[in-house]
Amino acid sequence: MPFTYDNLLSDKAAAKHAAPFKGLPPYHFVGGNIDEPTVPAEALADAMAKVLREEGHAMGKYGMDSGPQGYLPLREEICNIVKRRCEMSVTPDEVLVTSGSLQAMDLVNWALCNPGDVVLLEEGNYAGAIGKLRTMDVTPHAIALDESGMRMDALEQALAHYAAHGIRPKFIYTIPTVQNPTGSIMPTERRLEMLALSAKYDVPIFEDDCYADLVFSGERPPAIHALDTENRVIYCATFSKTIAPALRVGYLIAPWPLMGHILPLKTDAGSGALEQMVLANYLPDHFDQHVDSLLPMLKEKAGTLCAALDEHFGAAAEYERPLGGIYLWVTLPEEVNTDRLFTPALAQGVEINPGSEWTIDGPANTRRMRLCFGHPSVETIREGVAKLADICHAEFGVPLRSGNKPRD
Amino acid sequence: MPFTYDNLLSDKAAAKHAAPFKGLPPYHFVGGNIDEPTVPAEALADAMAKVLREEGHAMGKYGMDSGPQGYLPLREEICNIVKRRCEMSVTPDEVLVTSGSLQAMDLVNWALCNPGDVVLLEEGNYAGAIGKLRTMDVTPHAIALDESGMRMDALEQALAHYAAHGIRPKFIYTIPTVQNPTGSIMPTERRLEMLALSAKYDVPIFEDDCYADLVFSGERPPAIHALDTENRVIYCATFSKTIAPALRVGYLIAPWPLMGHILPLKTDAGSGALEQMVLANYLPDHFDQHVDSLLPMLKEKAGTLCAALDEHFGAAAEYERPLGGIYLWVTLPEEVNTDRLFTPALAQGVEINPGSEWTIDGPANTRRMRLCFGHPSVETIREGVAKLADICHAEFGVPLRSGNKPRD
Repeated sequence: MPFTYDNLLSDKAAAKHAAPFKGLPPYHFVGGNIDEPTVPAEALADAMAKVLREEGHAMGKYGMDSGPQGYLPLREEICNIVKRRCEMSVTPDEVLVTSGSLQAMDLVNWALCNPGDVVLLEEGNYAGAIGKLRTMDVTPHAIALDESGMRMDALEQALAHYAAHGIRPKFIYTIPTVQNPTGSIMPTERRLEMLALSAKYDVPIFEDDCYADLVFSGERPPAIHALDTENRVIYCATFSKTIAPALRVGYLIAPWPLMGHILPLKTDAGSGALEQMVLANYLPDHFDQHVDSLLPMLKEKAGTLCAALDEHFGAAAEYERPLGGIYLWVTLPEEVNTDRLFTPALAQGVEINPGSEWTIDGPANTRRMRLCFGHPSVETIREGVAKLADICHAEFGVPLRSGNKPRD
Repeated sequence: MPFTYDNLLSDKAAAKHAAPFKGLPPYHFVGGNIDEPTVPAEALADAMAKVLREEGHAMGKYGMDSGPQGYLPLREEICNIVKRRCEMSVTPDEVLVTSGSLQAMDLVNWALCNPGDVVLLEEGNYAGAIGKLRTMDVTPHAIALDESGMRMDALEQALAHYAAHGIRPKFIYTIPTVQNPTGSIMPTERRLEMLALSAKYDVPIFEDDCYADLVFSGERPPAIHALDTENRVIYCATFSKTIAPALRVGYLIAPWPLMGHILPLKTDAGSGALEQMVLANYLPDHFDQHVDSLLPMLKEKAGTLCAALDEHFGAAAEYERPLGGIYLWVTLPEEVNTDRLFTPALAQGVEINPGSEWTIDGPANTRRMRLCFGHPSVETIREGVAKLADICHAEFGVPLRSGNKPRD
């Protein structure tokens, strides 16, 4: 009889079992995948060939000649990018190249949180951020959102509540620029208010700027990090959404000596050298121009998605038009439950993110869903939304009207 | 006053603080770094340019078209390699590409261990393996070694002991081919004995074959995995020691459905695409030939290190000549403490691995040290060992004779 691992699994492993990968569904409205034709494969190939011939032998050492924080020319270029685009002044010693921004989040969580701690974050949020905290037995405390991002009255209320109970939340996690999932942008004034609350209650801020390059107008407020003068802000971002998600290159910016406590927690012997080398070579001449070329396409896709929702769902689908990024946050009528919509939709090739997974209070958000438009083409977006309306109607009786005609 | 993170750190983070990276010391006898000129940078550049132009756009998706287990052409080639070199029959569904073998170790530990569990492993061992278990509050139980690797009488004694106490160790972790740090190779007969003990006590084996390509003779026994017919063996290996450590590409081989429980624990959204693509393209035509070209060079370096120890330490340095790999395990006279040798040696540019870090019972091994010879040149090896003998004599009064002459 073949051996079984079933009764040897850890509690963590026993809880989940993945199915074998069967490819992406045709109408793929989830995840951070991007428009494949926009990946600058040719330019990356040129950059790669050059840098490998010049410096490839340095890969004989873990960390090449740059040590555990990542390839120095890339860290230097990251300093240039955040200066130019986010008004941040940082040195390469404050930059850690990570295997995607997911690793940056892990490292900050590990550096600051013990089980039982509290982190404050926007009520609608990246599922990975919520999940990582819960896996560590850290309590994610929801702060209400409006069309300008995290609400400062709600934040102050929570900070005052914890202070009154002698509890110091470990940090305020925020996605101020193209909030996930709402697509809002926090104005500068509110960023300054957040910094003032951070100072008043002595709780640092962890600013996640992963989508911030994708503001459709090309104009963004300075990073909260840029407005800070007291090292209260830890910052992360990524090249996943601008160059390619499969590259797995993100970065964490933190003041030394916090960085000195984070480095021993990064036990992977460094992030991949090729990705770091190619980006260090590609970015200086290409990054801004490449990002600029993405914006009209993404804006068009966002418009297509909104128009398709208007056509096929009518008043049944409510949303705020996103100001950037690759996702739309949709509220459906009360009778819809997107947890239950998920399976029949996927069976017909339409994959969505149920609202319960993208919020801290999942049960209160089962009428919501996140739709990502970065990967599908405009034609696929149109077809997929029409199909989703059919499935939603079949399951829940809404939408009642599509394309200006009543359904049967 | 600038904000401080000092009283916000997690227990784990507070315990360690890294110093800023200052470059490698000139006599660098630690870590898995390899001979830099051997990194096949030109051939990798050619492979990279080809595959990026052909398939680079697929990087627009996490996992490209291959899903969470890694780039399918690389997994297929890994199946070919382990078939040809280790006599293993596996399918791509059983292969997970990891960010170095370190991630493979994390995943196996996370999948099988709860705090309080026991893992059996060789008494002299990879410091990372010991440390990862201890960080999880898992007890590493030492099994004695001889010149053929883990001793089966000691293994059976431990298994019987735990069985008598109603405890089932989660797995037997072993480095049978070029054991770390002793450089021994376990003969086939002993591998079969280990499988029989695994069956008798119903405890699986985790076989770490990270150095197995570097057997100087070019001949190695079949992997334990290859001798198993009941899915009792989980296997990992890496391209760090043959292609380049900074690439960060390893792999884990495990039967489905264990793989199905491991995948949800890999929360990094995939390992880097470029590394996977370039290896899939490079390996089929180059791997065996490249590895063959490394062996005489490594054998020469091992010989140089042994000769230098003989010359400068004489009878004071005892060791078994390694049969492969990039390290030598040295025992010094009782009066030497390599924990205390470490700092003055590093101050003079010579870095060593103290034996206490490379063993489970650290305090019993303070007269031992590991010296890695993969990275330094033969000249550097000679100079570094002479210097180390001087420092050791100054600190501990041994060796008494060097180069056939008594020291003063």
